[in-house]
Amino acid sequence: MKFTTLITSTTLSLGILAGSAFAQDPISNAIGARQSLMRLYAFNIGTLGGMAKGAIAYDAAAATTAAANIAKLASIDGRAMFPTGSDDKAAANTAAKPEIWSNMADVGAKFGDLVKASIAMEAAAGGGLDALKGGIGALGGACGACHKAYRTPKS
Amino acid sequence: MKFTTLITSTTLSLGILAGSAFAQDPISNAIGARQSLMRLYAFNIGTLGGMAKGAIAYDAAAATTAAANIAKLASIDGRAMFPTGSDDKAAANTAAKPEIWSNMADVGAKFGDLVKASIAMEAAAGGGLDALKGGIGALGGACGACHKAYRTPKS
Repeated sequence: MKFTTLITSTTLSLGILAGSAFAQDPISNAIGARQSLMRLYAFNIGTLGGMAKGAIAYDAAAATTAAANIAKLASIDGRAMFPTGSDDKAAANTAAKPEIWSNMADVGAKFGDLVKASIAMEAAAGGGLDALKGGIGALGGACGACHKAYRTPKS
Repeated sequence: MKFTTLITSTTLSLGILAGSAFAQDPISNAIGARQSLMRLYAFNIGTLGGMAKGAIAYDAAAATTAAANIAKLASIDGRAMFPTGSDDKAAANTAAKPEIWSNMADVGAKFGDLVKASIAMEAAAGGGLDALKGGIGALGGACGACHKAYRTPKS
């Protein structure tokens, strides 16, 4: 299917064709999208983690920005990025275990922990390095809890 | 620099090491992050665009979710993803023109149009297919205005 033939509006096409994702099948597209979401988490957590371990000088504004971004990312509804058939047994280029889809209540609970930790970090990050350090364990732990349970380790 | 040697907390490392981005230099990391942000826009706009052109059946809830996601993405502070030296003359794997950095006021104005269009779409998307169609021109136009001015076309 040639996507461009479906576009009827030039204005629309400018925006819609912005992403390279549309040359892909829906499963690959969803996998790419959720990996993009994870990368944005990582980018912002990298700022906070860098400050926590002293690799980056603490900066209240930058820390607050990164923490607020994480909270916004955690507010995104990512269900469409996890379609059935996008686990690592059914699809390529993903480490998502099939157990995600059979344990949605647990996935949701773990995601809820991430939301809570991100909101707490947003409030704490600008309050000094110790406050930031105080929140990052819960935030990193929330990331890790889901990855440990539902992501196939890299070999 | 071996990142793992800097980690002092196992809990922290679980989260921080989640991203593969950290093996990269800061410029490549920022470029990857902003491309991830663009991909998330594209993923969600793809849902709305698909409905607008009839390729996907209109679904008020799914449309609202996608539109709300776009508005949340547009609320992310992406300045750290555009460091000096990450234009396509200075760095690899990006199409971002140097003019971005010399026209920040215009970039900001164009981004403001995106924010406005995304908020309007969030309000409209669940109100029926015609309402969705009514908002997508401004949304796609806001994407395209910035890309046209500040993105090197693919050859």
